[in-house]
Amino acid sequence: MNLPGQPAKQGARSLDPHLRRYAARTAGMTASEIRALFAVASRPEVVSLAGGMPHLAALPLDSLSVEIGDLIAQDGLVALQYGSAHGVPELREQICDVMALEGINGHPDDVVVTVGSQMGLDMVTRIFCDPGDVVLAEGPSYVGALGSFSAYQAQVVHVAMDADGLVPAALQEAVLAVEKAGQRVKFLYTIPNFHNPAGVTLAVRRRAEVLEICRRHGILVVEDNPYGLLGFDGTTYPALRSTDPDNVVYLGSFSKTFAAGLRVGWVLAPHAVREKLVLAAESATLCPPTLNQLIVSRYLSTHDWKGQIKTYREAYRERRDAAISALEQHMPVGSTWNKPNGGFYVWLTVPEGVDTKAMLPRAITQRVAYASGTGFYADGLGSRQLRISYCYPTPERIREGVRRLANVIKDEMELHETFGPTTARAISGPQNPSPDTA
Amino acid sequence: MNLPGQPAKQGARSLDPHLRRYAARTAGMTASEIRALFAVASRPEVVSLAGGMPHLAALPLDSLSVEIGDLIAQDGLVALQYGSAHGVPELREQICDVMALEGINGHPDDVVVTVGSQMGLDMVTRIFCDPGDVVLAEGPSYVGALGSFSAYQAQVVHVAMDADGLVPAALQEAVLAVEKAGQRVKFLYTIPNFHNPAGVTLAVRRRAEVLEICRRHGILVVEDNPYGLLGFDGTTYPALRSTDPDNVVYLGSFSKTFAAGLRVGWVLAPHAVREKLVLAAESATLCPPTLNQLIVSRYLSTHDWKGQIKTYREAYRERRDAAISALEQHMPVGSTWNKPNGGFYVWLTVPEGVDTKAMLPRAITQRVAYASGTGFYADGLGSRQLRISYCYPTPERIREGVRRLANVIKDEMELHETFGPTTARAISGPQNPSPDTA
Repeated sequence: MNLPGQPAKQGARSLDPHLRRYAARTAGMTASEIRALFAVASRPEVVSLAGGMPHLAALPLDSLSVEIGDLIAQDGLVALQYGSAHGVPELREQICDVMALEGINGHPDDVVVTVGSQMGLDMVTRIFCDPGDVVLAEGPSYVGALGSFSAYQAQVVHVAMDADGLVPAALQEAVLAVEKAGQRVKFLYTIPNFHNPAGVTLAVRRRAEVLEICRRHGILVVEDNPYGLLGFDGTTYPALRSTDPDNVVYLGSFSKTFAAGLRVGWVLAPHAVREKLVLAAESATLCPPTLNQLIVSRYLSTHDWKGQIKTYREAYRERRDAAISALEQHMPVGSTWNKPNGGFYVWLTVPEGVDTKAMLPRAITQRVAYASGTGFYADGLGSRQLRISYCYPTPERIREGVRRLANVIKDEMELHETFGPTTARAISGPQNPSPDTA
Repeated sequence: MNLPGQPAKQGARSLDPHLRRYAARTAGMTASEIRALFAVASRPEVVSLAGGMPHLAALPLDSLSVEIGDLIAQDGLVALQYGSAHGVPELREQICDVMALEGINGHPDDVVVTVGSQMGLDMVTRIFCDPGDVVLAEGPSYVGALGSFSAYQAQVVHVAMDADGLVPAALQEAVLAVEKAGQRVKFLYTIPNFHNPAGVTLAVRRRAEVLEICRRHGILVVEDNPYGLLGFDGTTYPALRSTDPDNVVYLGSFSKTFAAGLRVGWVLAPHAVREKLVLAAESATLCPPTLNQLIVSRYLSTHDWKGQIKTYREAYRERRDAAISALEQHMPVGSTWNKPNGGFYVWLTVPEGVDTKAMLPRAITQRVAYASGTGFYADGLGSRQLRISYCYPTPERIREGVRRLANVIKDEMELHETFGPTTARAISGPQNPSPDTA
């Protein structure tokens, strides 16, 4: 098994006859650590706390089977045909209904359907970022976003978070520092609700402040909100987009509220930006799959989709509880974590001296996988953090996984006491997203 | 109705508060002419010879409905879940079986499933092209390819074709000219079979010569082959990839042989390139839709897919015949066209003095739409050419459409004789692809 950065891998690379042909942007493309270990990490005996895969077992597959079969029989000539890059009009209207739950008053014309919100992110970066442009993002931030920013050679400047999310004073400071350095901020990328990977939510009182800072400095806000409807106490926070429609580009997704494998997401953008997004999307995929859009549209009109979200919410709350109680029971002194009120993730800080990236292969040997913190930073931080995803395994497996993880950490601490700090491999910057860390 | 380049449109643009924020690459993003006229062109009374939409009515929707419904019921937890950016392994094996029909001996590991072959094109350009790099492409070339090249700020240099496809001597000359200018060719983009839009096929005797020139000059070949199995006399030509696996990146698609709305295409690439493609694809869409891949996989294993291709072939041959006989019957002297042996398109050169771009709005008023030639060139040529797509309308509608088109051309000729040449609007460079011109 070759880990990134090891000699065997580099040797293999130097044999690539196409090496001198690649674009400069490929230099930033590296695989996530967990993917390098995927063959082992995906064995059934390994409890994976690494992946962001939704709990699909909660879906009504039988009735979906009937609806989708009927869709092909009735509307197959449309479902299997090319559509527009803008997206199916009826679905765009329904998407506006979904967004209304977060206080957004959007027009269907300003919605662009994308192949998952990852494509939305990629398209937004495509139309805004020249190489060297700065993107502000929470530190840590979503690994897939860092991958897109890197693909367009944008430079990420992280902004600190605390238990109430992005810190406005830190944002202000970061903006001034970038301006002082003569660089150009293109947008603030933020995940306000149930953050991936940090699990925190931007306090409502901070939202106006964040928007105001961005407005004052002429910085666009890109609001990524895949988890907003998954608040465990049923609270839905007002979207940033709801109060500043002209300066916020909103990214949404059905991956977490319905089904990830359909890859249906969307962007809601100011009108002029929307036109550019459609053109960018045409050159990227011509159009999103028509079938998938019609499936989501039919699902929204024939199923109790709000009830389904409630079902998901309850399942994730149960899993969150399992993770938190196991952390409380097993983690060694010196570890800290947050208790998320929604979404999929706990962000864990391990005791000093433990390196989560160096520890990962040993954890997998001990039959537990996680996403190490370094993948969520563009600047090399995160080696004392890791992300626990509680979305997919059963509560019982989560408890077992956390117990194993605690033992691995304790072993590392012993090693550290005996031999000094473990050595991390060279930091490789942002990693690529993949379903196992997304 | 605002046409691109008209004052009202530019006025609207200057009101865009985000104008100074866009990346440099957006300067090349312009909508296709036909899309600007879409609201009119898509009225039922208009015969559209513009679109590249496949003739899906030939599909067995009833049995597909049953299979897809069953797929959700049986494998829903996989079909609706995230997958890998590489693609579903079983489908990648089946794709190798499909490619074997064209003499390709590919390994499933070297196949990357993409969201249509448009995404394949976009990913290949992403990993190879820095701004200013040169891509060689037939002149004319696929509008969607030009859109992707433009999105990455690559410069397209066209290479002449004749009735036998790409002219090797012209390729050699183009390479030397680019080298002399101190520029760097990243790859040759070519559609060897039943070219879009030119309808011609690269003669078998020329294939080795094209590969040899590219090898000699260290130029990668990107072979785009969506129509290869749609030869009307049943001939399947050997893929370029089949004789030069190390220097050819092959793009394939199920859009024309099965169903376009699923957006399932693929790239077969040399091993090292494939790794980069997977990383690029992760940042673009995370993964292609799992459901769509499983649908294609099941279709290939449960349906007579070769028989279906034969059915498509016969339908398209009948339509080609309708188009050619109508052209022979109606077109004025001074028009020329080719008779394609497969695929979807006839490339028509109109009499001198007629401008196909300027004529388009008048044609739509006369209830016929087409794709004007200018969209298929990156360098402003093509105003005396247009593309006729015979794939979608019935033979009867095709005949009627060609008859109307001939009348519009005759009217233009009369205008020209009376008032001098019609004035084309400023050439806007490569246009974006869209389903109506794809």
